[in-house]
Amino acid sequence: MINRLRELLGEQGLLTAPEQMARYSRDWSGDLSGRPLAVARPGSVGHLARLVGLCAEAGIPMVPQGGHTGLVGGAVPSPEGRELVISLERLDRIRSVDPLNFSMVAEAGCVLETLHRAAEEHDLHFPLSLGAQGSCQIGGNVATNAGGVNVLRYGMARDLVLGLEVVLPDGRIWNGLRSLRKNNTGYDLKQLFIGSEGTLGIVTAAALKLFPRPGQVQTAMLGLASVSDAMRLYAAARRELSDLLSAFELLPRRCIEITLEAHPALREPLEAPAPVYVLMEASASGLVDLAALMEQFLGGCLERGAILDGAVAMSRAQAAGFWRLREDLVEAQHRRGRHLRTDVSIPISCLPDFMREADAAMAAHLPEALPVAYGHVGDGNVHYNVLPPPGLDDDAQDALLHRAEELVFALVDRFGGSISAEHGIGRVKREPFLRRLGAVDRDLLHGIKSALDPRGCMSPGRLLAGDGS
Amino acid sequence: MINRLRELLGEQGLLTAPEQMARYSRDWSGDLSGRPLAVARPGSVGHLARLVGLCAEAGIPMVPQGGHTGLVGGAVPSPEGRELVISLERLDRIRSVDPLNFSMVAEAGCVLETLHRAAEEHDLHFPLSLGAQGSCQIGGNVATNAGGVNVLRYGMARDLVLGLEVVLPDGRIWNGLRSLRKNNTGYDLKQLFIGSEGTLGIVTAAALKLFPRPGQVQTAMLGLASVSDAMRLYAAARRELSDLLSAFELLPRRCIEITLEAHPALREPLEAPAPVYVLMEASASGLVDLAALMEQFLGGCLERGAILDGAVAMSRAQAAGFWRLREDLVEAQHRRGRHLRTDVSIPISCLPDFMREADAAMAAHLPEALPVAYGHVGDGNVHYNVLPPPGLDDDAQDALLHRAEELVFALVDRFGGSISAEHGIGRVKREPFLRRLGAVDRDLLHGIKSALDPRGCMSPGRLLAGDGS
Repeated sequence: MINRLRELLGEQGLLTAPEQMARYSRDWSGDLSGRPLAVARPGSVGHLARLVGLCAEAGIPMVPQGGHTGLVGGAVPSPEGRELVISLERLDRIRSVDPLNFSMVAEAGCVLETLHRAAEEHDLHFPLSLGAQGSCQIGGNVATNAGGVNVLRYGMARDLVLGLEVVLPDGRIWNGLRSLRKNNTGYDLKQLFIGSEGTLGIVTAAALKLFPRPGQVQTAMLGLASVSDAMRLYAAARRELSDLLSAFELLPRRCIEITLEAHPALREPLEAPAPVYVLMEASASGLVDLAALMEQFLGGCLERGAILDGAVAMSRAQAAGFWRLREDLVEAQHRRGRHLRTDVSIPISCLPDFMREADAAMAAHLPEALPVAYGHVGDGNVHYNVLPPPGLDDDAQDALLHRAEELVFALVDRFGGSISAEHGIGRVKREPFLRRLGAVDRDLLHGIKSALDPRGCMSPGRLLAGDGS
Repeated sequence: MINRLRELLGEQGLLTAPEQMARYSRDWSGDLSGRPLAVARPGSVGHLARLVGLCAEAGIPMVPQGGHTGLVGGAVPSPEGRELVISLERLDRIRSVDPLNFSMVAEAGCVLETLHRAAEEHDLHFPLSLGAQGSCQIGGNVATNAGGVNVLRYGMARDLVLGLEVVLPDGRIWNGLRSLRKNNTGYDLKQLFIGSEGTLGIVTAAALKLFPRPGQVQTAMLGLASVSDAMRLYAAARRELSDLLSAFELLPRRCIEITLEAHPALREPLEAPAPVYVLMEASASGLVDLAALMEQFLGGCLERGAILDGAVAMSRAQAAGFWRLREDLVEAQHRRGRHLRTDVSIPISCLPDFMREADAAMAAHLPEALPVAYGHVGDGNVHYNVLPPPGLDDDAQDALLHRAEELVFALVDRFGGSISAEHGIGRVKREPFLRRLGAVDRDLLHGIKSALDPRGCMSPGRLLAGDGS
């Protein structure tokens, strides 16, 4: 079989030596790794289709792989050495950019940042933006329905896709690569593949929406009295700024303290400490005078006591400084060692109650642990993280982190939330996902999986259990 | 069986007398009609679920029905009297409105206009808006992925749905009614039901996105030199108005002439006739000074010759007058008798070529016919209609209209467009839809249909052929 694949793909297209396969065997963090049967790197969609057809016939499990930046182990091969890793990295052509249609067609292996640049060359904007954008690939972004910092304004990857080209589990090519805004003919098949984490087929190209490039950005750091006030501010900001809001991040005081402690070069963002901070950003293109809008809005907020204090960035450097307080928080938590990281979402209106009750649950059941909660509040997406006290041995840490996750997820369930707002399920979150799955949902998921991948060769054990149970 | 259903649903819940069933037997236009086995009007989701379970066991075909305003016959029973019509009209409760989460949960039978009012009571906006909004129901809007006049800004019904509750073809209830902005756990099942035209299950309730109410609206009627100029103006307007554009309708001069001729009370919109008109609307909430923005934008356009002339509505009445020129065009065409109405979409950048080539094809093959083309150009959605010459007999008319559709659809295919941008397939467009369906698409559609509705009892013969072929 390996020989047949080598014949099809050429020397460059099939890697079998352990040293060549190493970088396809683990994810970016190095936390998760496995052993591929081999690594296929097809150089064309036609080759990929034939490869998949051959593997399907032979019953070889396949795992498509993008930029290795997933957070739930979906693209990491299993340890048994039975899975063929299929890297999309050689399918990296931007097939077209259509400025008047505000769209582009890009192959799966295109690195996200190259799409940003291609759009900018036409004074346009591809808004999907995440920490990993220098290495993640659009195929992976689509297959995992990636989120990121612009979801509030532009939606998830799903909302940015006009059409897809997909190699199906039997090796046939589905051509759904139309760049239409409106098309109401039959089931919207592309929706099946977006977010399916490689379990229903391999995305080979996507037609993507583009937007006018937002030449104006206004960034403000605001101090507020409570999480409830932050929720009301969010509603007011959407209304007063006519939905030009592009980020709305909540940072309780504890988050600022942790970041400042770890990064002494950073400064207090406001003169006096506030119980809660909001990092807010609005963006606009063209003739809108965004600076004046922001000033007027925040002036009104101060006057009526909706915010305690606030600072608007007067330069890009100052805006970057505000963002560092948010971004360095992740590293500051890492410095404190192993901890629970969650990525949950709940209805925005329930956030104050959720955070209050989660804090109460931690205080009652794990009083020695330190909860650190923050997030993309405009999306209802909270990272409710829990740091164990220093000095615990590994087993005690494991037990504490597991208990903390149970407490957080139980509250998420109670508020009708999601245990994975944007990271997906993959292998890492499969257990808690399947535990929550009702019989009807399970039957629907399995029905779709069986209809599209009856042999179960595509990314087995991701999202659903490998044996189809 | 009828007795069992009557026992379950009560006298009010099951209609069998012909005079009672009459209004459930035809669509709004009266053009399409059939004969129901009976009409079920369940008063609760539980009753509906049991009803569907009973019918599924007995193999009785079911056709869910909303406000009878569909344009492709999807909800009209077949003439054979074998299909049970299931009206959702008694499931008409707004279950909740959550202003801070910008969402509401409404049952399928809620009339669209009542949802508009419910949102307005909270100074919010539910943007799905169409001619039939006084009678169409949200369940039908979701099941057919309705479009309408605000698609440019807010998307189709699909883009406005956060979650769904669905009775599946076997009578079980799928509860996917979460009001979350982000939820990346497993296949996005709600996408399957949106736009499935009743063939995969019955939508009983939807969690919907709300938006700040746009208190400011600016409407302008512009005269341009060509369709190409209109496309460039569209791109400039998106950029300069920071995507606050909410409508962008193209009306070639011929459309204005037809409307003015039919409605002498209407006035020429601009001083001198222009080859092409654009009816443009922008909307905003809060602090944005939309009037100043619009004035500045249009002033610049005039100065650089991007538009020949233009008028901005100074009052709601004047704006309504501009819109009448667009809306009365539909009636003006009706007055001329039977004609071809299409609802196609193509990439926006291809519109000038499409319209030129379609006109050329008509001139070459049907020189006696009058093409009338206009549309929601911001969505790439064109109504390329064809009016036959007066005095043809029925057969000659049929032949001409059929030929005209073939010519238009062939061009749509060539430009990678869609033969149904927003009306769907139903029964009326099934033939041209199935004729265009490749083997891969057909297998995917049938695979999904079989997975969800293996008995084929849900809306048979809509979208797909009734016998599953």
